[in-house]
Amino acid sequence: MTTNNEVMQFTKVGIFGRLDSQSVEKSITKLMQLLQDLNKECQIEHSIANVLTKVQGKAASRQDIGEWADLIIVVGGDGTFLSAARDVAQFEVPMLGVNRGRLGFLTDIMPSQMDRQVRDVFKGEFNTEDRFLLLAQIIRNGKVVGENCALNDVVLHPGKSIRMIEFDLEINGQFVYNQRSDGLIVSTPTGSTAYAMSAGGPLMHPSMDALILVPMFPHSLNNRPLVVGAESNLTIKVDHYNDTPPHVSLDAQNHLTMEQGDELRITKYPKTLTLIHPTEHNYYDICRNKLGWSRKVENEEQDPDL
Amino acid sequence: MTTNNEVMQFTKVGIFGRLDSQSVEKSITKLMQLLQDLNKECQIEHSIANVLTKVQGKAASRQDIGEWADLIIVVGGDGTFLSAARDVAQFEVPMLGVNRGRLGFLTDIMPSQMDRQVRDVFKGEFNTEDRFLLLAQIIRNGKVVGENCALNDVVLHPGKSIRMIEFDLEINGQFVYNQRSDGLIVSTPTGSTAYAMSAGGPLMHPSMDALILVPMFPHSLNNRPLVVGAESNLTIKVDHYNDTPPHVSLDAQNHLTMEQGDELRITKYPKTLTLIHPTEHNYYDICRNKLGWSRKVENEEQDPDL
Amino acid sequence: MTTNNEVMQFTKVGIFGRLDSQSVEKSITKLMQLLQDLNKECQIEHSIANVLTKVQGKAASRQDIGEWADLIIVVGGDGTFLSAARDVAQFEVPMLGVNRGRLGFLTDIMPSQMDRQVRDVFKGEFNTEDRFLLLAQIIRNGKVVGENCALNDVVLHPGKSIRMIEFDLEINGQFVYNQRSDGLIVSTPTGSTAYAMSAGGPLMHPSMDALILVPMFPHSLNNRPLVVGAESNLTIKVDHYNDTPPHVSLDAQNHLTMEQGDELRITKYPKTLTLIHPTEHNYYDICRNKLGWSRKVENEEQDPDL
Amino acid sequence: MTTNNEVMQFTKVGIFGRLDSQSVEKSITKLMQLLQDLNKECQIEHSIANVLTKVQGKAASRQDIGEWADLIIVVGGDGTFLSAARDVAQFEVPMLGVNRGRLGFLTDIMPSQMDRQVRDVFKGEFNTEDRFLLLAQIIRNGKVVGENCALNDVVLHPGKSIRMIEFDLEINGQFVYNQRSDGLIVSTPTGSTAYAMSAGGPLMHPSMDALILVPMFPHSLNNRPLVVGAESNLTIKVDHYNDTPPHVSLDAQNHLTMEQGDELRITKYPKTLTLIHPTEHNYYDICRNKLGWSRKVENEEQDPDL
Repeated sequence: MTTNNEVMQFTKVGIFGRLDSQSVEKSITKLMQLLQDLNKECQIEHSIANVLTKVQGKAASRQDIGEWADLIIVVGGDGTFLSAARDVAQFEVPMLGVNRGRLGFLTDIMPSQMDRQVRDVFKGEFNTEDRFLLLAQIIRNGKVVGENCALNDVVLHPGKSIRMIEFDLEINGQFVYNQRSDGLIVSTPTGSTAYAMSAGGPLMHPSMDALILVPMFPHSLNNRPLVVGAESNLTIKVDHYNDTPPHVSLDAQNHLTMEQGDELRITKYPKTLTLIHPTEHNYYDICRNKLGWSRKVENEEQDPDL
Repeated sequence: MTTNNEVMQFTKVGIFGRLDSQSVEKSITKLMQLLQDLNKECQIEHSIANVLTKVQGKAASRQDIGEWADLIIVVGGDGTFLSAARDVAQFEVPMLGVNRGRLGFLTDIMPSQMDRQVRDVFKGEFNTEDRFLLLAQIIRNGKVVGENCALNDVVLHPGKSIRMIEFDLEINGQFVYNQRSDGLIVSTPTGSTAYAMSAGGPLMHPSMDALILVPMFPHSLNNRPLVVGAESNLTIKVDHYNDTPPHVSLDAQNHLTMEQGDELRITKYPKTLTLIHPTEHNYYDICRNKLGWSRKVENEEQDPDL
Repeated sequence: MTTNNEVMQFTKVGIFGRLDSQSVEKSITKLMQLLQDLNKECQIEHSIANVLTKVQGKAASRQDIGEWADLIIVVGGDGTFLSAARDVAQFEVPMLGVNRGRLGFLTDIMPSQMDRQVRDVFKGEFNTEDRFLLLAQIIRNGKVVGENCALNDVVLHPGKSIRMIEFDLEINGQFVYNQRSDGLIVSTPTGSTAYAMSAGGPLMHPSMDALILVPMFPHSLNNRPLVVGAESNLTIKVDHYNDTPPHVSLDAQNHLTMEQGDELRITKYPKTLTLIHPTEHNYYDICRNKLGWSRKVENEEQDPDL
Repeated sequence: MTTNNEVMQFTKVGIFGRLDSQSVEKSITKLMQLLQDLNKECQIEHSIANVLTKVQGKAASRQDIGEWADLIIVVGGDGTFLSAARDVAQFEVPMLGVNRGRLGFLTDIMPSQMDRQVRDVFKGEFNTEDRFLLLAQIIRNGKVVGENCALNDVVLHPGKSIRMIEFDLEINGQFVYNQRSDGLIVSTPTGSTAYAMSAGGPLMHPSMDALILVPMFPHSLNNRPLVVGAESNLTIKVDHYNDTPPHVSLDAQNHLTMEQGDELRITKYPKTLTLIHPTEHNYYDICRNKLGWSRKVENEEQDPDL
């Protein structure tokens, strides 16, 4: 994480947001007034523009904004940020998140601090942090028949819950294991505080260039989460499954379906995502707050006079 | 577990089996010849009778057999045994399992020992063991709109995998917790070596009169498996869910669907299942074999002259 | 848990407390004034009496108080309560806890509520709850050479940390497993929120008549917590260990040492402990508070005008 | 992992071994004859030389051998290999392991294959793999008062088992968390199949440049294993502890003691360990064998005629 006072200057700002949320709309309205004050050019994604009729700013598609902007600000929760990141990953535009959701590992500007922290970013006072994405590809007869990228995780699963699939995993051409389970989570460090954590995976500092493979309810007691390098090429062949063909989910938001004989290939996505953070951003602070590390199981009433 | 030499005498034997398995068909053919030698009356379930045309024995439905028989022998795997147990649970007929599947916690007669062990059972040399089942009921506007029993587990889940549901759990009218997760496994001791174990639940001796509640990938780090008495009345209300309504699965084989506002009630099924075991049956032996407790991570080559 | 308005009448009250704590001393002083108001006879353990010189009340040993009292009130944390329970377990005196410590699963009267809740108890408005203890015995050449009881857990361990021991476990004369690990926790339901929980064991409702066996850092991946009936007789033989002989700890407070060839026997302690609870006591409330079940990982700022 | 046919030529071979093992002595005797056939110079550590009186070869200290040799062959188990690695880490001599112990993640030549595989190594047919070590330093008043390196793990613990310590962890000067637990395991990828795995840590491919921090029986339910970069500087301050001062163990074999106010600093050891592997060495093969990944919980008897 480095402070980039002079390297990056942002002038063309794209705005993405979560729909159907009054608080998001309020934050976007404020944000656009702020950007106008700062004499920044603004483009706003269509779906939001349609709702915020009073707000000025050119409406465009996420694709077009991704190609045009030198900064994208996402207002919403981590879910909104994830879908935005996948949509514009190919353009390598830096992204900044304003938190209007539940979590906030990715969207770390709080609405109450937005005015100050966004002004600071445009003054060049911010930190940058690179995150990598994964590319999942379905291979049929040697050809890619479906693909998408993921910032948190690629999950192989049977589509319906509490069904079982059996698959072979190869890493860099080496056979790793045959597994019978409810599926497999392949998580980036970014995703290590999301679904992989619920499934028993370790936390991983976002600076790590590594993947976490977490089996979902494996039938064997011997399976454990496995950490491998992010440059690994993963190949998964699903031989046996119950009545539904295997599915592949990207950040639990996009879904691909496999047919019998298909192969799932997971590699590092070639483009890098740059996160823009306020200078006071601190990964461990966020962990302590969100994961409750700071809480002890305590109960002594404080008043000594009781 | 008690040895019942004189109490139970079996004369009317029902035979259930897994379809589409040559090894099951062989075992059933042998078993019926054995029962003929022993002068036992036999009824065989329709689907199996249709396949085994050379075998004599009256074909009937599982229901009719359950009502008529004083012993049911299941040939197949634990999955076959589970469905048989649910189908005839109301009749409280003792059940014996011949193992032709993968696992064998419930079906503990091995084919190679079948002749001797089945003869022993009819001589009165066997142990009995009581197991309880769960009753799951969907309540809509105060009325039961769907119900079924389960020998292993009742699982509340969103139907589609990697979706989230949020629910409130009450036990005996006391609020326990609100949970956001992929679902909840409510397991009997019998089910503690099945899905609940994959999800991180403890093993529980089959003699225990207790339930294990195992959260599936809970969003909070604070959730743990919870053990409560088998007489507990569980009530689950699902308030929020993604695009699919919650499902309830019984032994992962039968499925009920809930509508918005429905309540899931889980209680102990009023009838008891009696398992018949060979006298050499030993729960911990089975655990050591199936779960690999006896295996150490060893590697020393044995030949001291190497 | 039953409400016993008329059955129990308390007139002879023993008072135990944690030493070296100003807040405990304050609560005991208040408590004794309250008991004087209520015309109850009081005895206070020596060590506390020595410190609280201004307080009236006969000083006596825990043993003598246990024999004499019909109610014992413990002021301190769960640790104080545990040692008090072991010290007077043989007398089967009901016990009430005032919380001046960190946790408070056992000491559930908060200082701020003490006056009202203690008055209620003496009016007969309270609930009772039975808890069982474990008895650990070291057997050498067929004779008991050391024994003690435990309310939370009996832990077999090598004395020094990060050493390994290897032992055989038998339950009711049946061989269960040979295990290589850092030790074994045998926990009551009461102890299921203590050390056993840190080691990955399930929570168990205090009404359960069951034990939880939790392996400590087992060398094999196959070991899991195991739940068995509280009437089980456990026998543990330690064959191999590193340079230190195995130790047995009771509630992590009392310690026994084993010699080569000794056997550890764990059974249910024959006397029962009766806990007195305020009528508003609720186990799941305590779990939600202490274990953080009620907390969600949330972050949305509340002010809609931001 | 690369195949180094021409780069490395080994002529001066040091031999280390586990004492008090007949099988180790046999393997060393065979090995030294083999090295004599191959016209290699040999030095053998004193303690082994004293026992193997018939074997020719100069006896020397591990230190002197480490300085002199261009290859060290360790005969024994992973424990023997760990102590050898720490003893000669500073000299950066490549090391080869012959397995005469239980595990064999580090000692991957089986005795039955020794002749062929060792000959292959001296022909230049082998793979090399770099592993890093950790350096643990006790800091008192700003000065290093004790230090040692570790190939598997550095473990902070209270010395006696089932005691608690409370400490603050900083990584690269950033406060991470305050933890109350039985201790903390800081593991290399090499150590991820050892103690860290027993404590619930993930497996980590040995090529990873990362550390795993695994809390030991943490009092909070929120703590999880954490993966950070191997270049991280860890600082641990122990403020509160029970009656024993904290200990630091290196590979569970060497031990340092801390005093009140001391600080534990853990960094990457500046020198690298090069492992020599037979060309057929495969990490995932070893995992499947040792961890039982290849085993399914199966039971179908194989003979179809039964």
